[in-house]
Amino acid sequence: MSQVKEFNDYREKMNDKILSADNLVLKRLFNLDTNTYQEGALPVKTKELLGLVASMVLRCDDCIKYHLGKCYECGVSKEEIFETFAVANIVGGTIVIPHTRRAVEYWEELESQV
Amino acid sequence: MSQVKEFNDYREKMNDKILSADNLVLKRLFNLDTNTYQEGALPVKTKELLGLVASMVLRCDDCIKYHLGKCYECGVSKEEIFETFAVANIVGGTIVIPHTRRAVEYWEELESQV
Amino acid sequence: MSQVKEFNDYREKMNDKILSADNLVLKRLFNLDTNTYQEGALPVKTKELLGLVASMVLRCDDCIKYHLGKCYECGVSKEEIFETFAVANIVGGTIVIPHTRRAVEYWEELESQV
Amino acid sequence: MSQVKEFNDYREKMNDKILSADNLVLKRLFNLDTNTYQEGALPVKTKELLGLVASMVLRCDDCIKYHLGKCYECGVSKEEIFETFAVANIVGGTIVIPHTRRAVEYWEELESQV
Amino acid sequence: MSQVKEFNDYREKMNDKILSADNLVLKRLFNLDTNTYQEGALPVKTKELLGLVASMVLRCDDCIKYHLGKCYECGVSKEEIFETFAVANIVGGTIVIPHTRRAVEYWEELESQV
Amino acid sequence: MSQVKEFNDYREKMNDKILSADNLVLKRLFNLDTNTYQEGALPVKTKELLGLVASMVLRCDDCIKYHLGKCYECGVSKEEIFETFAVANIVGGTIVIPHTRRAVEYWEELESQV
Repeated sequence: MSQVKEFNDYREKMNDKILSADNLVLKRLFNLDTNTYQEGALPVKTKELLGLVASMVLRCDDCIKYHLGKCYECGVSKEEIFETFAVANIVGGTIVIPHTRRAVEYWEELESQV
Repeated sequence: MSQVKEFNDYREKMNDKILSADNLVLKRLFNLDTNTYQEGALPVKTKELLGLVASMVLRCDDCIKYHLGKCYECGVSKEEIFETFAVANIVGGTIVIPHTRRAVEYWEELESQV
Repeated sequence: MSQVKEFNDYREKMNDKILSADNLVLKRLFNLDTNTYQEGALPVKTKELLGLVASMVLRCDDCIKYHLGKCYECGVSKEEIFETFAVANIVGGTIVIPHTRRAVEYWEELESQV
Repeated sequence: MSQVKEFNDYREKMNDKILSADNLVLKRLFNLDTNTYQEGALPVKTKELLGLVASMVLRCDDCIKYHLGKCYECGVSKEEIFETFAVANIVGGTIVIPHTRRAVEYWEELESQV
Repeated sequence: MSQVKEFNDYREKMNDKILSADNLVLKRLFNLDTNTYQEGALPVKTKELLGLVASMVLRCDDCIKYHLGKCYECGVSKEEIFETFAVANIVGGTIVIPHTRRAVEYWEELESQV
Repeated sequence: MSQVKEFNDYREKMNDKILSADNLVLKRLFNLDTNTYQEGALPVKTKELLGLVASMVLRCDDCIKYHLGKCYECGVSKEEIFETFAVANIVGGTIVIPHTRRAVEYWEELESQV
């Protein structure tokens, strides 16, 4: 199975379990998370790039995958993605490189999907 | 093999190797780690919840698994676990969500063990 | 001016400015933050200790001060506070010690208030 | 003295000392840092917002001040700044709030400069 | 396939992809990374130990593997490696232990290679 | 008062308070911390450089000051210090630069003491 599908399936399955536990704080946080990236003074595309760079410097592979998927949907170009990777690696240091490797692999999968 | 057994077996095997290397500082730190969670002014259960939330905001899946196991042994309820997850996700942000997904999966395995 | 008053005054003044900027996500997050520490399956006192230990391992002096203040209001004893410091220093390492020094100073101020 | 001037003066003075120490790696890194935020596939403004959000989730007040200054020069609006704060606080959690308070104070100083 | 070969192969394959994307900042950072660990006032061996301890406290398994490989090539002894692990675990806390377990396993593979 | 004296005085005063609270875990951790940097397979000087780089990438100004003081006592040269700064800034990224500025200032004070 492709990494993209595997990531999305697991994410959806477990998010459902978290939400079904009926913890009000977690439910509202999930909601708020969705609102955060909606069109506002800044366009969705910029917000997704902000989410991506934040995920990279905090070094969370799953969050990186999620925002890469969203960036791909928004039509972010490969060159723009790599400039975002550059900011993340300069601010966050070489410790971000291994996550960049996996991000590049995931981005390639997104590009190779029909 | 279940995640719980796999985690515990690897943890025990590698801890033995670390201890057998005879580095005094590491041996004492392991010892101290055990002492930290013993009954004191705060009950063991509270201390394990403290260890869990600290592991979540620092985003260490193995540490989360370890403390989930201990919390389960202490009789922590699912509702209490989710309130601890809520604190971790609010303090630490959505970057903690992927770790929460894996924590929920591990907790379910703990609950399904005979 | 005491550290406690200085901290609370600046916090309140700037929180008001943040809220008055009318960013919906930030307003809701502030709201959610308050809800997180309310009585639930876990008592308020335990939740404040969770907030404290999370703030310590993430090494945020202001967050530590905030939760120390709340812990003090909840009647947490000095011995319980130090056991929480111990968990934070063991999980987070000696990098937490400088924050523990400042936490001890702030706790003393809380105790010395009339 | 205003925070803005104080920050810029100290930054310039100490950067000069670092560069004068003639460590090739540090000199090149400083150079690279400048290149990172130059116009490319992404506009300077977007890159400065990326630098800002990365600095916020990594919780570095000085880096936040630096990028706020650059954002101000680029004509970023207050509403855009607060949407960037919102992303940082959602991804990074309430631990980012104290840095947001100081960021709001610094932004006000930038706005109040003649 | 051994962990060592698997790690090196993936690292090389993906680094090639990153470099071929022709992002100037990333290319220069990779270059600078190599320069950082070259013989200078400090010997290569000390610099690799510095890279190792930094990778451990920042808890990046891939970076740890990379520097373990380099340390092994430099003739670092097992005792020296464990003293470096001790510094990392004391400074960074027990959150570093799971990474130490995996580091010990990788070091054993390095030692068992013909 | 010089930064060096101010740092050492506050550190000593508050460490005494922490130790007098009689929390066994904290007392032993402080002890262990001292043991970690003692002569072993690695010389004290190397261990202090390890402590310094770890403190820099974790971005703790007080820990940086402490290890700079120890490095100075061990006769570490300015060139060696800057090579350690270089490793920290490359691994940890430009987010380490503000801490490097303050480290350079502190190192100058150490050098200017009679």
